[in-house]
Amino acid sequence: MRGSALCPGTFDPVTNGHLDIIERASRVFDTLVVVVSDNPRKDPLFSMEERLAILKEAVSEHDNVEVATFQGLLVEYAKGRDIGVIVKGLRAVSDFDYELQMAQMNGRLAGVETFFMHTNPKWSYLSSSLIKEVARYGGDVSGLVPDFVRERLLEKLS
Amino acid sequence: MRGSALCPGTFDPVTNGHLDIIERASRVFDTLVVVVSDNPRKDPLFSMEERLAILKEAVSEHDNVEVATFQGLLVEYAKGRDIGVIVKGLRAVSDFDYELQMAQMNGRLAGVETFFMHTNPKWSYLSSSLIKEVARYGGDVSGLVPDFVRERLLEKLS
Amino acid sequence: MRGSALCPGTFDPVTNGHLDIIERASRVFDTLVVVVSDNPRKDPLFSMEERLAILKEAVSEHDNVEVATFQGLLVEYAKGRDIGVIVKGLRAVSDFDYELQMAQMNGRLAGVETFFMHTNPKWSYLSSSLIKEVARYGGDVSGLVPDFVRERLLEKLS
Amino acid sequence: MRGSALCPGTFDPVTNGHLDIIERASRVFDTLVVVVSDNPRKDPLFSMEERLAILKEAVSEHDNVEVATFQGLLVEYAKGRDIGVIVKGLRAVSDFDYELQMAQMNGRLAGVETFFMHTNPKWSYLSSSLIKEVARYGGDVSGLVPDFVRERLLEKLS
Amino acid sequence: MRGSALCPGTFDPVTNGHLDIIERASRVFDTLVVVVSDNPRKDPLFSMEERLAILKEAVSEHDNVEVATFQGLLVEYAKGRDIGVIVKGLRAVSDFDYELQMAQMNGRLAGVETFFMHTNPKWSYLSSSLIKEVARYGGDVSGLVPDFVRERLLEKLS
Amino acid sequence: MRGSALCPGTFDPVTNGHLDIIERASRVFDTLVVVVSDNPRKDPLFSMEERLAILKEAVSEHDNVEVATFQGLLVEYAKGRDIGVIVKGLRAVSDFDYELQMAQMNGRLAGVETFFMHTNPKWSYLSSSLIKEVARYGGDVSGLVPDFVRERLLEKLS
Repeated sequence: MRGSALCPGTFDPVTNGHLDIIERASRVFDTLVVVVSDNPRKDPLFSMEERLAILKEAVSEHDNVEVATFQGLLVEYAKGRDIGVIVKGLRAVSDFDYELQMAQMNGRLAGVETFFMHTNPKWSYLSSSLIKEVARYGGDVSGLVPDFVRERLLEKLS
Repeated sequence: MRGSALCPGTFDPVTNGHLDIIERASRVFDTLVVVVSDNPRKDPLFSMEERLAILKEAVSEHDNVEVATFQGLLVEYAKGRDIGVIVKGLRAVSDFDYELQMAQMNGRLAGVETFFMHTNPKWSYLSSSLIKEVARYGGDVSGLVPDFVRERLLEKLS
Repeated sequence: MRGSALCPGTFDPVTNGHLDIIERASRVFDTLVVVVSDNPRKDPLFSMEERLAILKEAVSEHDNVEVATFQGLLVEYAKGRDIGVIVKGLRAVSDFDYELQMAQMNGRLAGVETFFMHTNPKWSYLSSSLIKEVARYGGDVSGLVPDFVRERLLEKLS
Repeated sequence: MRGSALCPGTFDPVTNGHLDIIERASRVFDTLVVVVSDNPRKDPLFSMEERLAILKEAVSEHDNVEVATFQGLLVEYAKGRDIGVIVKGLRAVSDFDYELQMAQMNGRLAGVETFFMHTNPKWSYLSSSLIKEVARYGGDVSGLVPDFVRERLLEKLS
Repeated sequence: MRGSALCPGTFDPVTNGHLDIIERASRVFDTLVVVVSDNPRKDPLFSMEERLAILKEAVSEHDNVEVATFQGLLVEYAKGRDIGVIVKGLRAVSDFDYELQMAQMNGRLAGVETFFMHTNPKWSYLSSSLIKEVARYGGDVSGLVPDFVRERLLEKLS
Repeated sequence: MRGSALCPGTFDPVTNGHLDIIERASRVFDTLVVVVSDNPRKDPLFSMEERLAILKEAVSEHDNVEVATFQGLLVEYAKGRDIGVIVKGLRAVSDFDYELQMAQMNGRLAGVETFFMHTNPKWSYLSSSLIKEVARYGGDVSGLVPDFVRERLLEKLS
């Protein structure tokens, strides 16, 4: 379906930067499927189930946003659901090379297009790993993640 | 209309890199409006009329691609046509900073979203100015622009 | 004097991004001298006198901020005033290479150190030239420059 | 106190590049506190005690340079000592994005400013990890670290 | 000997991007020695013996290309064989900083020069790790590595 | 001839950074032809004749370095002289994208390979335009260009 897009990520946990991309993309596409991936190179703080639950709560007010997970290659999942577009946020040049490489590979593997959206400047310095690092040392992350995510984070780290 | 997008550029002249972005974007959106802008900081080789004519010929086989021009701010044109998405190709890091700056400004000015698409790697080194520089010195640009564009270029430069 | 710094720029005109750097630097140094330079490669919209007057008005509430201009090399001006530190804002990677080159040259020429400060993310996409481009085409720049600067800009461009 | 700054790092071990930044910063600030951090993502070759001892020896001739360590968030340590400025060396674009992200987070968390200084070009290719890699394989690192550091490195690796 | 060069890498496994660099370099130098290194920071999928065997098969039709391995520092190996030039492919900006750092260190350690060649644009998104990631999840890597490499990869991962 | 290479540039005027690349390349190739190009987008300070004369004097002690100029496309000149290699210095990321684009175009147009060499770190901040800017304002450029070049520069600018 022309009006659907995938928005993939590890979301460990979701930040206000992710939510900004999700919200803006949800205004453009009929349906936005946020897909949580297991990155074997990263050791997540939150389990897949926890990440899915957090995301569902965080996007609950957007009717056309669905949360899902998948096994295997993202482009296979995209083809299986007949979705031809991936949406990704770009924060900085350091994101650019890796994401471009993935986009070119995904285009070649399955003709799936990647649309890069700029991150809202005010969240441009946010990343899940920086949020976890700050929270781990007792720094205040309010305003950088939704309040209920901050609470889960503090429980998890205590 | 949700399914429309603008694809802006100077197109002086259109290259195979531009046409790759236009073709791929036209598969995703219901309508793609390619808009030719007058960049006051660039002194174009082809007049606005010539650039429009070349583009129309180059995209003639894509039924859902329209060619247009505009005066003033791109986002005002977008709002006037009720189009909320701009599509841009990204080739390299040197494109990135300027394009991100424009995207952030356009988002702020009018809530218009910019979707960046990666240029097909095989055209990643192409630019209109490099094409003109090569052609000016007698280099062969076939395969880098459509054949009829190469001919117009040679006429213009002779 | 250890506690003074220079903050150089073309300021054609000053933006909220510049003012953020000036304000934050003024909290760290005893005296901050904002110096307006004539860049021979840029054709300014506002004359040197106008840029000085705008800047003075914009920084009037900061008691330890001085506005000045100079002829010749910035490091000679710094040495003449016995100031050993230059403060510059860095927005993005595209600023980085040129500014680093200048900082290395200034260190070699006169032992003057350059301290780079990050631009507040919410102004990271601002530049004087983008502001002028938007205003020239009738775009709304309120909130991006002080109100009185927006008015001078509109008068100048009308 | 206005005239103090923190210079944080892992310093595993300190290189001539670090010492160049420390020396130049110590000329600008009344007091420079070099703080050794434990980066949980890096497995250091030298223990915290060893790194502190090496640093103290390396900066012993600078009267206004203090060496310290801390637990937790750097900005908390800064606030506890009433220091409002962090000084960091920038070598290359690959340092830039991460350091900018940290600077923006630290500014938000505690209003602490980060001043980036350019690394002296002749040390721009140095890093502690490259030094260790070269020394491990028997390469000569004299001139890249102080002589006594080279000796400790060779003892450690033998 | 003036006409020889080293082409180092981990080659885990060799890709069509590597082979493009090897083939082009082999046309310029009398002898090209492809050297397989053990990177202690990477856990290779293929053993050193397997990587050597795969490379030998992949370059078998180039008479002036030799495949070798070494212990210790690359520049020591280069000096031992009286070879003064290293050839490396550069894909993107993210390669640039690290490779430049290594080239500067190698120049300092032993006067060995590094010549960077651009990767053919059509392979610019390829890396051994991306190939392995795609193959691991069942994606089709034909056309990205030689056919016999694809088969070894599938055996290894099954 | 396998052992020859071209080293192109505007050389307006030659700097110690250029001479470092020329000297190092001349040790690797049998013959190095330094070619001075007329860049139509730059308005040179020194005429073509002056730039050729300065370069010849600057490289006079290197027996295997030739100085030349050409009309038209660099790759045509390379083919006419049966030279298959271009050597270029890379200073920073901002050089990278444009130079890579040119290298890919030159490879496509005529199969000519480009070898990028890193600039010696101590000259990494040098450029002809920065040298001219500093000299124009009375800054001391000794040690950055050969002495006789500094004198010609001062004569020219006085």
